[in-house]
Amino acid sequence: MSDASDRTTTYVNGEPVADGAPAVPASDRGLNYGDGIFETMCIVRGRVRYLADHLARLRLGLARLHMPAIDQDGLALEVGRAVEGWQNAVAKLIVTRGDGPRGYRPAVASSPRRILTVAPQPPGAGQGIAVRWCTTRLGRNPVLAGIKHLNRLEQVLARAEWQDPDLAEGLMLDTEGSVVCGTSSNLFAVIDGVLCTPDVALCGVAGVMRKQIIAAARRIGLETSIGPLARADVESADELFLSNAVMALRPVTRLGPITWPHGERTRALVHEIAAE
Amino acid sequence: MSDASDRTTTYVNGEPVADGAPAVPASDRGLNYGDGIFETMCIVRGRVRYLADHLARLRLGLARLHMPAIDQDGLALEVGRAVEGWQNAVAKLIVTRGDGPRGYRPAVASSPRRILTVAPQPPGAGQGIAVRWCTTRLGRNPVLAGIKHLNRLEQVLARAEWQDPDLAEGLMLDTEGSVVCGTSSNLFAVIDGVLCTPDVALCGVAGVMRKQIIAAARRIGLETSIGPLARADVESADELFLSNAVMALRPVTRLGPITWPHGERTRALVHEIAAE
Repeated sequence: MSDASDRTTTYVNGEPVADGAPAVPASDRGLNYGDGIFETMCIVRGRVRYLADHLARLRLGLARLHMPAIDQDGLALEVGRAVEGWQNAVAKLIVTRGDGPRGYRPAVASSPRRILTVAPQPPGAGQGIAVRWCTTRLGRNPVLAGIKHLNRLEQVLARAEWQDPDLAEGLMLDTEGSVVCGTSSNLFAVIDGVLCTPDVALCGVAGVMRKQIIAAARRIGLETSIGPLARADVESADELFLSNAVMALRPVTRLGPITWPHGERTRALVHEIAAE
Repeated sequence: MSDASDRTTTYVNGEPVADGAPAVPASDRGLNYGDGIFETMCIVRGRVRYLADHLARLRLGLARLHMPAIDQDGLALEVGRAVEGWQNAVAKLIVTRGDGPRGYRPAVASSPRRILTVAPQPPGAGQGIAVRWCTTRLGRNPVLAGIKHLNRLEQVLARAEWQDPDLAEGLMLDTEGSVVCGTSSNLFAVIDGVLCTPDVALCGVAGVMRKQIIAAARRIGLETSIGPLARADVESADELFLSNAVMALRPVTRLGPITWPHGERTRALVHEIAAE
């Protein structure tokens, strides 16, 4: 099986590139300015989970950055071919604005570059995790909020705050003190029977799994609230969990001194999503 | 003369790379997350202007991102060798955190990658320019403010707002409405005889030329104030100019309907800086 090995396969604009070999020129705007977007997709039993949602968010990101649209069917085929032979893996697709001359100004007719990597993924979905608060904050800027762009230094600095392998994630506040997300995940809290998650209008990413969870909550009749959450709200929540496309949904069982059992609504959501 | 051609020369970790050829692998963290910093340096009559200041800011940026320090003498030699044969040019040095596995977490022992390009630069320093206000705002985040990191989507989106070649720069406000800078320049306004420039504690870059201008103002006895500036302060200023390492100091002669003659203090500063 392909995914029994440690190899990573890389394609640039659909063409294979040897692992570790140079893939993009010095003039690539993704490298120079983080000028692009990405998607991280989970391959489960040989199929890209939620591919349509990933492509839809990608399209939204391209539009927000005023980058040309990419043919969705062609992209779906390209991803499909790249993951052939893999059972359980992670596919990461970066789309940069392509090459440009020096300076922030994008070329009027830019030619985006696609960098697709497929790599093995350890299992682990559904297991409870311990998390911490990060001190690195997220800046607020509606122009960049929601999309999965390549400007990720805030997340890098937050993730660099701890080395303890027992802590799976760090929770982040924005500069005004509102709870936003984990460094690479969306956050959900069950408070007084309502599933609460921060909106992503000022910072944070509109996660593909976040969308699935909100839809699943509605299907099982769990009331949902998208809006501001304070640190105290999270710490006193009845249930707490994180989500992203790779880890799916993970119950938080410990946050600093606070512990939670696996909660009833979290279990119901895990069950509902697995049943799809 | 090298700089009579249109060629760009590129070096990765000191080794030459053919123009346009792949230079960094898909796993480079600069490409994936904008995880790194850069310096844009002006080569004047064969020498890198303010090299020590550029290297000092680079060192500060590396420290702020918890990246390992780079030997300053070795780096100065590397840049010096790359610009040999050039008279007037621009050298851009990107330092990324190097390669990493998937995920925001930086490797404990990262091995930074240096990407250095040298390209021709058209002359033009000192000429008056017309500018506009941008609608794209800068988010506030002290953890990233001041350094010249690779997360530059705000500047890209701002610079994409206009195509008119007669407009040389766009002025940016932050999300709270304070004036910060041009898309690729620092901003100075002379107001009631005082040279005013925004601080860069919440957003913006601490420009190498900005530092030189503040020092020059002190030498010629021009009072300086570093602090908040509102849009109305800028529009009613007695003199207005922008600066960066490449264009040096440029008087603003037009901002929307407002025009200025070349101002007396601006001229004095241009003279003082040229005299160094």
